[in-house]
Amino acid sequence: MKNGEIIAVGSEILLGQITNTNAKFISEHLAKIGINVYYHTVVGDNPNRLLNAVKVAETRADLIIFTGGLGPTKDDLTKETLANHLGVNLEYDEKALRSIENFFAKRNQPMTENNKKQALIFSGSQCLPNDTGMAPGMFLTKNNRTYILLPGPPSEMQPMFTTYAIPEILKGIENVEQIESRVLRFYGIGESKLEVELEDLIDTQTNPTIAPLAVDGEVTVRITAKHALDDERKHLLDETEEKILVRVGKYLYGYNETTIVNEMGKLLQQKNLTLAVAESLTGGLFQEEVTSIAGCSKWFKGGIVSYAPEVKINNLGVKKETIENHGVVSEECAKEMAENVRKLMDTDFGLSFTGVAGPGSLEGKEPGTVYIGVSVKNKPTKGYYVNLFGNRESVRVRSVKHGAWLVYNALREID
Amino acid sequence: MKNGEIIAVGSEILLGQITNTNAKFISEHLAKIGINVYYHTVVGDNPNRLLNAVKVAETRADLIIFTGGLGPTKDDLTKETLANHLGVNLEYDEKALRSIENFFAKRNQPMTENNKKQALIFSGSQCLPNDTGMAPGMFLTKNNRTYILLPGPPSEMQPMFTTYAIPEILKGIENVEQIESRVLRFYGIGESKLEVELEDLIDTQTNPTIAPLAVDGEVTVRITAKHALDDERKHLLDETEEKILVRVGKYLYGYNETTIVNEMGKLLQQKNLTLAVAESLTGGLFQEEVTSIAGCSKWFKGGIVSYAPEVKINNLGVKKETIENHGVVSEECAKEMAENVRKLMDTDFGLSFTGVAGPGSLEGKEPGTVYIGVSVKNKPTKGYYVNLFGNRESVRVRSVKHGAWLVYNALREID
Repeated sequence: MKNGEIIAVGSEILLGQITNTNAKFISEHLAKIGINVYYHTVVGDNPNRLLNAVKVAETRADLIIFTGGLGPTKDDLTKETLANHLGVNLEYDEKALRSIENFFAKRNQPMTENNKKQALIFSGSQCLPNDTGMAPGMFLTKNNRTYILLPGPPSEMQPMFTTYAIPEILKGIENVEQIESRVLRFYGIGESKLEVELEDLIDTQTNPTIAPLAVDGEVTVRITAKHALDDERKHLLDETEEKILVRVGKYLYGYNETTIVNEMGKLLQQKNLTLAVAESLTGGLFQEEVTSIAGCSKWFKGGIVSYAPEVKINNLGVKKETIENHGVVSEECAKEMAENVRKLMDTDFGLSFTGVAGPGSLEGKEPGTVYIGVSVKNKPTKGYYVNLFGNRESVRVRSVKHGAWLVYNALREID
Repeated sequence: MKNGEIIAVGSEILLGQITNTNAKFISEHLAKIGINVYYHTVVGDNPNRLLNAVKVAETRADLIIFTGGLGPTKDDLTKETLANHLGVNLEYDEKALRSIENFFAKRNQPMTENNKKQALIFSGSQCLPNDTGMAPGMFLTKNNRTYILLPGPPSEMQPMFTTYAIPEILKGIENVEQIESRVLRFYGIGESKLEVELEDLIDTQTNPTIAPLAVDGEVTVRITAKHALDDERKHLLDETEEKILVRVGKYLYGYNETTIVNEMGKLLQQKNLTLAVAESLTGGLFQEEVTSIAGCSKWFKGGIVSYAPEVKINNLGVKKETIENHGVVSEECAKEMAENVRKLMDTDFGLSFTGVAGPGSLEGKEPGTVYIGVSVKNKPTKGYYVNLFGNRESVRVRSVKHGAWLVYNALREID
């Protein structure tokens, strides 16, 4: 099993209503396990054209992965078209059927026939459970080719692919040169500055390769090594990482798919400290990111979204004079917000955000003007000014990262 | 010229490093001018596989649009491969060549030979100028087929396609049947229930077509009409919409790219009413969505993220007995949260969320168990129980939608 093709089924993609992000996700994961993808195809909800796409793919690939067309409606026909083409029967997967029945039973809703149909899988195939939806996927090897069928919604496809399909694929291959990447995440250093620091490494290195990338105020460096042996790959990555960190290690906050908020949370938990937050321009974005982390209740207590000035005064206890003299977009206001929310919620850390997200200016200050307050128990409260780049959304996202970075650094200073 | 296929050339797409957003952009624009796109293909920077993709496309399309592979480097070979296949010569486009020369002269840099090569276009083709980069595109009709070559970077491809390629395409078709879509957005009805309600319409309708889609707890219905005349298309859409709304109109909340939170905000602003929010399991997600709307300060004052039980008691004034007797995951707690946050922030509406986002259960209640409180000034506060489906993220997203839907409905009842 070496040559892959990904076929996305869905007229909505051909109409330009949605982007085929599934192909990217699958390709990325196949690259990591050394499987070449030579073609992506997108075809609509039409059995003849789908059949045409399958026949073309069979001339050039031995691993064909389908996304979409497994749902309950009439235009979902990937399974039926393929069963017909391959000459296999459809049979109910008992487990999948029970899970669909449970779904409706729980909601006291009757299960219609078209929903039941989702539990049909190819006879002789491996069922790939759907942990986040109803339609199961399947894995079938026939005529020396492997066919994998996955649902279309990314929230169902992604966990099914990584949890159930990848292990099945790996069973069929051995001793391939695998690709392994490690992403180092930096904050507080610009992309061009980082690139200058690492220039000679980037230019001379071939295995691993080193690729910097800037996204929303932070910079990542992807190190990618190629080797058949796990230990050797790891060794190559370690060696290169060390060379990089000697130069820019103080800006490193984490590895791979983490976030600054996540790393801040880990440190709070390690040190057994708690946090409360007061948000104005970020309007709940910081706390939303915090509470998307399961288990955050160990270190996060809550906060106040003080969008209106009167909420800052009445509910957060910011002094009226502070706002009259300095405005809500000020270091003074940020400091009172941080200190007061910490006291109100009885935590070790208080963090606050106030500023101008845009599109309009506020109190004569331009969008991107942001003040962040950090209050630590038994220490003087600090206020920070930052000027952030981008539109409303971007300013909010960058504010959240900067706030987390400030708390993260304050935490590193505490034993 | 009726059947389109889009071929994106670039190994970085097959490696999953970038998403093929070009195909979406082009498809969307072709749909508007009535051209059917039946396939998307992605192929790497390899002449043999590219040639294979072209040959396949020629069996099923008479408009083939290429993106990528027009740049100066060695792996840019779309132009050469195609010239060879079609038996056409490459010749310099004088205007494009001068524009590239100017680019380097302006920067005081020498122009290398490989950069010059970018100005080569097919003999007999129309040159499509590149206003935002160097490599021009081209438009060639040969053997009753049209070939359009566009650069890969979206910042170059998009303006070239809309400014120069679309007018060329339109010259080749008259009295074009254009496609127009309208999306109706529903909440509170499942996809299969909605499909049953509309089944005969969906089955018998051909123009407009009717396509339901379920995403994260809501259902959309896309009506797509085809007609050469603007008025007629609008009439077709209106007529079908009316038929649909007679049956399921009470679940409609908006059209096209809006959200329930957005529609709720519009109603609050229209009626000159204000909102405050108390969030537990949603942890700021509702308020984050609210404050991503520019101008929300007219109707949104703020809120409290009461993640820890003691914040519910100390900062939000939920009675200790309520939590002892009913737990935090209860209708009683939700009602007190909604009413108290409304009073604390002196608003007309108070909305609250408490429940189990998962992955673990809480107070013996399963993930997906959610209570929402809605408090309206001078009315009895109401509590609602919902059982929501999905993982932690999905439960939170669906909670937010459900809360906004409840406020939206309460607002519709107010004159």
